[in-house]
Amino acid sequence: MDSQFKAGILIEALPYIQEYYGKTVVVKYGGSAMQSDELMDAVIRDMILLKCVGIDVVMIHGGGPEINEMLKKIGKESKFINGLRYTDKETIDIVQMVLSGKVNKSLVSRIENFGGRALGLCGIDGNMLKAQRKGGDVDYGFVGDVVGVDTRPITDAIDNGYIPVIATLAKDDDGDILNVNADTAAAAIAAALNAEKFILLTDVKGVLHDPHDESTLISVIHGDEVQSLIDEGVISGGMIPKIQCCMHAFNGGVRRTHIIDGRVPHSILIEMLSDSGLGTMIC
Amino acid sequence: MDSQFKAGILIEALPYIQEYYGKTVVVKYGGSAMQSDELMDAVIRDMILLKCVGIDVVMIHGGGPEINEMLKKIGKESKFINGLRYTDKETIDIVQMVLSGKVNKSLVSRIENFGGRALGLCGIDGNMLKAQRKGGDVDYGFVGDVVGVDTRPITDAIDNGYIPVIATLAKDDDGDILNVNADTAAAAIAAALNAEKFILLTDVKGVLHDPHDESTLISVIHGDEVQSLIDEGVISGGMIPKIQCCMHAFNGGVRRTHIIDGRVPHSILIEMLSDSGLGTMIC
Amino acid sequence: MDSQFKAGILIEALPYIQEYYGKTVVVKYGGSAMQSDELMDAVIRDMILLKCVGIDVVMIHGGGPEINEMLKKIGKESKFINGLRYTDKETIDIVQMVLSGKVNKSLVSRIENFGGRALGLCGIDGNMLKAQRKGGDVDYGFVGDVVGVDTRPITDAIDNGYIPVIATLAKDDDGDILNVNADTAAAAIAAALNAEKFILLTDVKGVLHDPHDESTLISVIHGDEVQSLIDEGVISGGMIPKIQCCMHAFNGGVRRTHIIDGRVPHSILIEMLSDSGLGTMIC
Amino acid sequence: MDSQFKAGILIEALPYIQEYYGKTVVVKYGGSAMQSDELMDAVIRDMILLKCVGIDVVMIHGGGPEINEMLKKIGKESKFINGLRYTDKETIDIVQMVLSGKVNKSLVSRIENFGGRALGLCGIDGNMLKAQRKGGDVDYGFVGDVVGVDTRPITDAIDNGYIPVIATLAKDDDGDILNVNADTAAAAIAAALNAEKFILLTDVKGVLHDPHDESTLISVIHGDEVQSLIDEGVISGGMIPKIQCCMHAFNGGVRRTHIIDGRVPHSILIEMLSDSGLGTMIC
Amino acid sequence: MDSQFKAGILIEALPYIQEYYGKTVVVKYGGSAMQSDELMDAVIRDMILLKCVGIDVVMIHGGGPEINEMLKKIGKESKFINGLRYTDKETIDIVQMVLSGKVNKSLVSRIENFGGRALGLCGIDGNMLKAQRKGGDVDYGFVGDVVGVDTRPITDAIDNGYIPVIATLAKDDDGDILNVNADTAAAAIAAALNAEKFILLTDVKGVLHDPHDESTLISVIHGDEVQSLIDEGVISGGMIPKIQCCMHAFNGGVRRTHIIDGRVPHSILIEMLSDSGLGTMIC
Amino acid sequence: MDSQFKAGILIEALPYIQEYYGKTVVVKYGGSAMQSDELMDAVIRDMILLKCVGIDVVMIHGGGPEINEMLKKIGKESKFINGLRYTDKETIDIVQMVLSGKVNKSLVSRIENFGGRALGLCGIDGNMLKAQRKGGDVDYGFVGDVVGVDTRPITDAIDNGYIPVIATLAKDDDGDILNVNADTAAAAIAAALNAEKFILLTDVKGVLHDPHDESTLISVIHGDEVQSLIDEGVISGGMIPKIQCCMHAFNGGVRRTHIIDGRVPHSILIEMLSDSGLGTMIC
Repeated sequence: MDSQFKAGILIEALPYIQEYYGKTVVVKYGGSAMQSDELMDAVIRDMILLKCVGIDVVMIHGGGPEINEMLKKIGKESKFINGLRYTDKETIDIVQMVLSGKVNKSLVSRIENFGGRALGLCGIDGNMLKAQRKGGDVDYGFVGDVVGVDTRPITDAIDNGYIPVIATLAKDDDGDILNVNADTAAAAIAAALNAEKFILLTDVKGVLHDPHDESTLISVIHGDEVQSLIDEGVISGGMIPKIQCCMHAFNGGVRRTHIIDGRVPHSILIEMLSDSGLGTMIC
Repeated sequence: MDSQFKAGILIEALPYIQEYYGKTVVVKYGGSAMQSDELMDAVIRDMILLKCVGIDVVMIHGGGPEINEMLKKIGKESKFINGLRYTDKETIDIVQMVLSGKVNKSLVSRIENFGGRALGLCGIDGNMLKAQRKGGDVDYGFVGDVVGVDTRPITDAIDNGYIPVIATLAKDDDGDILNVNADTAAAAIAAALNAEKFILLTDVKGVLHDPHDESTLISVIHGDEVQSLIDEGVISGGMIPKIQCCMHAFNGGVRRTHIIDGRVPHSILIEMLSDSGLGTMIC
Repeated sequence: MDSQFKAGILIEALPYIQEYYGKTVVVKYGGSAMQSDELMDAVIRDMILLKCVGIDVVMIHGGGPEINEMLKKIGKESKFINGLRYTDKETIDIVQMVLSGKVNKSLVSRIENFGGRALGLCGIDGNMLKAQRKGGDVDYGFVGDVVGVDTRPITDAIDNGYIPVIATLAKDDDGDILNVNADTAAAAIAAALNAEKFILLTDVKGVLHDPHDESTLISVIHGDEVQSLIDEGVISGGMIPKIQCCMHAFNGGVRRTHIIDGRVPHSILIEMLSDSGLGTMIC
Repeated sequence: MDSQFKAGILIEALPYIQEYYGKTVVVKYGGSAMQSDELMDAVIRDMILLKCVGIDVVMIHGGGPEINEMLKKIGKESKFINGLRYTDKETIDIVQMVLSGKVNKSLVSRIENFGGRALGLCGIDGNMLKAQRKGGDVDYGFVGDVVGVDTRPITDAIDNGYIPVIATLAKDDDGDILNVNADTAAAAIAAALNAEKFILLTDVKGVLHDPHDESTLISVIHGDEVQSLIDEGVISGGMIPKIQCCMHAFNGGVRRTHIIDGRVPHSILIEMLSDSGLGTMIC
Repeated sequence: MDSQFKAGILIEALPYIQEYYGKTVVVKYGGSAMQSDELMDAVIRDMILLKCVGIDVVMIHGGGPEINEMLKKIGKESKFINGLRYTDKETIDIVQMVLSGKVNKSLVSRIENFGGRALGLCGIDGNMLKAQRKGGDVDYGFVGDVVGVDTRPITDAIDNGYIPVIATLAKDDDGDILNVNADTAAAAIAAALNAEKFILLTDVKGVLHDPHDESTLISVIHGDEVQSLIDEGVISGGMIPKIQCCMHAFNGGVRRTHIIDGRVPHSILIEMLSDSGLGTMIC
Repeated sequence: MDSQFKAGILIEALPYIQEYYGKTVVVKYGGSAMQSDELMDAVIRDMILLKCVGIDVVMIHGGGPEINEMLKKIGKESKFINGLRYTDKETIDIVQMVLSGKVNKSLVSRIENFGGRALGLCGIDGNMLKAQRKGGDVDYGFVGDVVGVDTRPITDAIDNGYIPVIATLAKDDDGDILNVNADTAAAAIAAALNAEKFILLTDVKGVLHDPHDESTLISVIHGDEVQSLIDEGVISGGMIPKIQCCMHAFNGGVRRTHIIDGRVPHSILIEMLSDSGLGTMIC
């Protein structure tokens, strides 16, 4: 009987639900999983389900493509220094507007549409994210690194029953709003929350021994293996900062960090509520 | 992909979980579903899952077969009057012992074995169930009807995070412990708790138009149809008191009452977390 | 002695502080007071001071000029129907982005810069503002009227010690985000909060008997005088909807509503903590 | 005047009441004090009075005679190994049933009959008592030792205003229910609760220098005297495990442990609320 | 055995303790019971014992003799108008000082000396007692009647675990401190607290049919009998206002009011915790 | 515009208010500031304003002049030993009466008259101040030193929203009420409360380099400078014990201690809410 079979599948998830009950899970959401409506709804519903079964989910998002699109719309050309986009006042204004006004509130709206309760915050709210301008000789404009997290606006939202959705803007001591890397900010927040889990949704399957063969996925990497894997070239390119993010979160007190494939529908649920697991765990 | 398919099934349950979130569901557990180890484990895990997803489940049980077995073991012969077992002091002692000592604590133990948290109570604890001896000319011994429910021991247990498991013993004003009908007591408790749902697990599929054809199941009966269905003989025999129980609960403030088939594994979950529904709903 | 004189002025404010202690004051902020940096800082510091002395301030803002500027930047031309801007999907996206991403978070940032604690919310957060599309034969696009307020995201923020700063976006039952009039939304929120006071910051001195003579300010208008003042032409033009807003708030349970001059620095403080009063009170 | 004299006696108890106010007292109840109805009522009323004057009493009971009686009733013969009863599945079922179903709930009922509020729990409820099967070469069946106490079900009951009444069943990691020594379990619970006092109600006056002369009662034994008293034969036979129980509780953090004569009506009250004291204190 | 007998007496009090558990009892303390050190200590210990057994006692006192003594000490002559002492500014200062400084704090000190926790308040604290000057043609100076009670300072003290001890000063709308009748103020406080019991400690046995024969004590007077008893002269002289006080408290919501003999040691305890009762109950 | 100017002054105070928000400030009130009605009202309103802006003020007072006046009124002659007044039983009674009955309750009344909420306590209430008789060969009668502070009656009052007003009576282990130095007691209370600030209101401008030239005020003294300033004679006479008081409070955990001029109206407000500062800070 069909419905009985489905009930059986629900029951299979029970031990996983019990394991995470009352714990905090931080999900950094971006990339492909944020570009398709279908994948977006899958992620959103995963978040709501996790919240329903007593897990305190925190959603942190970037929004690079939307920012680019908007800059293009206003005819703003981007200047790059050492591969980093120089962020002038007009650009940071667009960044702020797109991240905390468009992407953030649209995610909140989607969560509410599926019956969840969400609160859209950015690093400015309640002085959540404190940053410092990038130092050195080069002036990148309004670009910085997170140097402090005040978790109260997040835990207040959790305690009041909301899923906090966070745009990673930050402010420095001069009161200037800075553009910060969303992955790094997410890792810092996960660490500050002493999260049980930090999940980075990406556009790849995880760390692969052979980048052309998805069957060579490395399921678990221990911290002390990271450097040699970089040296061997197994971890390379854009994966290096992602792995470093995870190491950061892990060293900051997060129990488990994961890089998983955001292109797979319900990848968060699969990672958390089944024994399949997904992607690469760094711990 | 298999795990993705399973995740999809979890997500299908989301709207149902949201509907019952924070509400109270009283399950009267007995009959066949209590005789097989497999069915028992299925019911237990259903209860734990519901608790995990934020639904306040209350489990109420009987234990007729176990009582009979014990009476047989001590060689006690039963005397019947008008079809009701005469309950002398020795018998009520056995009833108390078996219900609140064996069946109750074994259920609690099973819940704990699957990682749930349960508290085994009986109607004596905290003066939960107040009863009155059956009146009239005939003396049935220590047999009575529930006339009052103090819900505090139950809501205390819920508030402290336990699944309350309740044996339906009751006490009268003389301090005598009385044997009461478990279905009726469960209905009274559901009403006193203003439960969202009252589920009677039985050994039949529900109310059938043609008792020999399970495909003639009546899914919904409205209160004002009950009498005519009895008159027509559609509701008959042991089903009559069960329907009356449900009517009692409904009139006492329970939003929905159900008679469902305890022989179907995970019948509670199917009823609550899918659109299939099961058995007969009386409302 | 100078400092002693200043202390005396603080003490003069004491009875007013005591009067409003623990009460809610909703300020609709917009117009000129939002265009100059100096006036902005004055308003911000007024809000923080009121919060400090135990008054629960709620700041609600619009952002017309910023929206126009952005539309211009992306070369979007506006179509008007019956004097109302037709709002297509691209426009509502800009409205959302500018209001909840730029204006809102910039206000939050300013409050934090002066040592206050603020939380930037919009009507989408926690499903705060429920709207309905404007009916009738004409299609204005994504434009609507507020039909319901869930105050929990606001009172949660107040209870956690923040000044809630609210952008007046709203959502309809289809999940579409709609542009709503900020004054009206503010009045609806004030009513839903049972606020003690609703203050509309405007670009005029208040209601004047002779529009060319500021000395003819009407300090108090009672509800039953409104219609005749409109008939006489004393209340006219853009003042009519503002007065109607106040009447709405007042009829919804707000004790006192005020239209005051946002061009006067610290006009909120002057209105609330001195016997001077300012502008026109409608009650 | 008689009533004045009685009032004076109440007042004499005041300093003792003040001393124990808000503290936890664990009473192990068994033996003769549990066989006579009169003594039972005296103990029960002592417990209620202590609860009334703000002392958190916890009642722990055994039930050897009732178990024997039931085993006899079903014609079960007992097999003994090294003086310990071999406990097969049928026997542990009877033990569970009698302890947690009969003795436990009857005590609860008695407390309620005298106007107290009680909650009947066993070590299975909320996974309160964790045990391990007796190791070694000999198989004693379902017999074990307490290796862990989760005090939450007990403190929850106390916080909700009940007198917890506890049957000392326990469970091992395999989910098997084991028979454990009630005195030892009570001592473990008292230690886990950091109780102020642990009282063992027995059938003797206490430790006597000359077992035939009750006037040779030793009022206080210090921990370091125990071994020599055993060597001298002053502490012997069944008194040895009882003293060891007390030592266990004391070493686990209980401030004072007592072996007192349960045959004396109101012995608990006499011990606690007068300067007479009773029996032997081990500290 | 002596200690066993005493324990029995404690147990006799149990049903009375249970009856009053968690309820509020207001005792107006004055007269002879306040003149002798021995009687004072008896009253104090009664209060502490009642507090210990979970009864919320509130002690209200007068202090006429101490006031007279002090006035004499400073050589102040009293002027009487219509039998009422004219209270000038100097006199009300002495009244305030003696009542709230001497009598009140000395009672608090005594309670603390016996291990109780007390807080000494007067009607000025937290604006507890609001009064109005006696009207009419005659000017009695600073003399008034209680017209309002703010119970918060009293319930705050109770909630924080103290016995509130209250001196019956009051203040009028001009901020003047007025002398009010302590019995009447106590009755007003008892009514405002919805007390279970209001006890007036006096210097007589209660209402006597024959004033010269204490055996003619009337144990219970119902409200509707009062007038005829006054007409018959059974209630006369100083007993009339005391009975009216009780009627006031009773009509204000107090369940039982008592006039009892303060000269009997532990009269409060006898009245409350035995079936003897004492004095006259008006209800 | 006048009201705008005043608003500006309020706003100037904002950073100071934010600095002290939620912190505890203990004010020792006495001397000239307590003799004039005008100065008294200024102090009272300062206290209420501070309470209003979220600062937990605690007012501690002496009352030497009032005690002297009362002793004179009853014709009591004072005997001095080594410059200390010998305090016999009659004198300590007067001290208790005047301090906790007259001065204390009059201050409470004044606070209430200005719309504040106050609770008048003395060191006897809730056993707040524990003292020891002065030792040595000389018998000073009922005179002692504070040796312990139970802050609960104070923090209870703060938590319930009152300004605690405290008369510095204390009790020794024999239950005798002792006269203690109010400055020292205030310092001990400030330390026990871990206050942010301890303010001693005096009759001088602060510590002066040249006692005849107020322009030589020393604004800040560090702890290690005190002794040399005493040696130099800059700190001398009555200023020595005051400075020692401050050192005591500071060493006990108070962050800042101040000696300020009580003759200046609103000196507390000037010190706390402006950058002028006043008097001498010892830290």
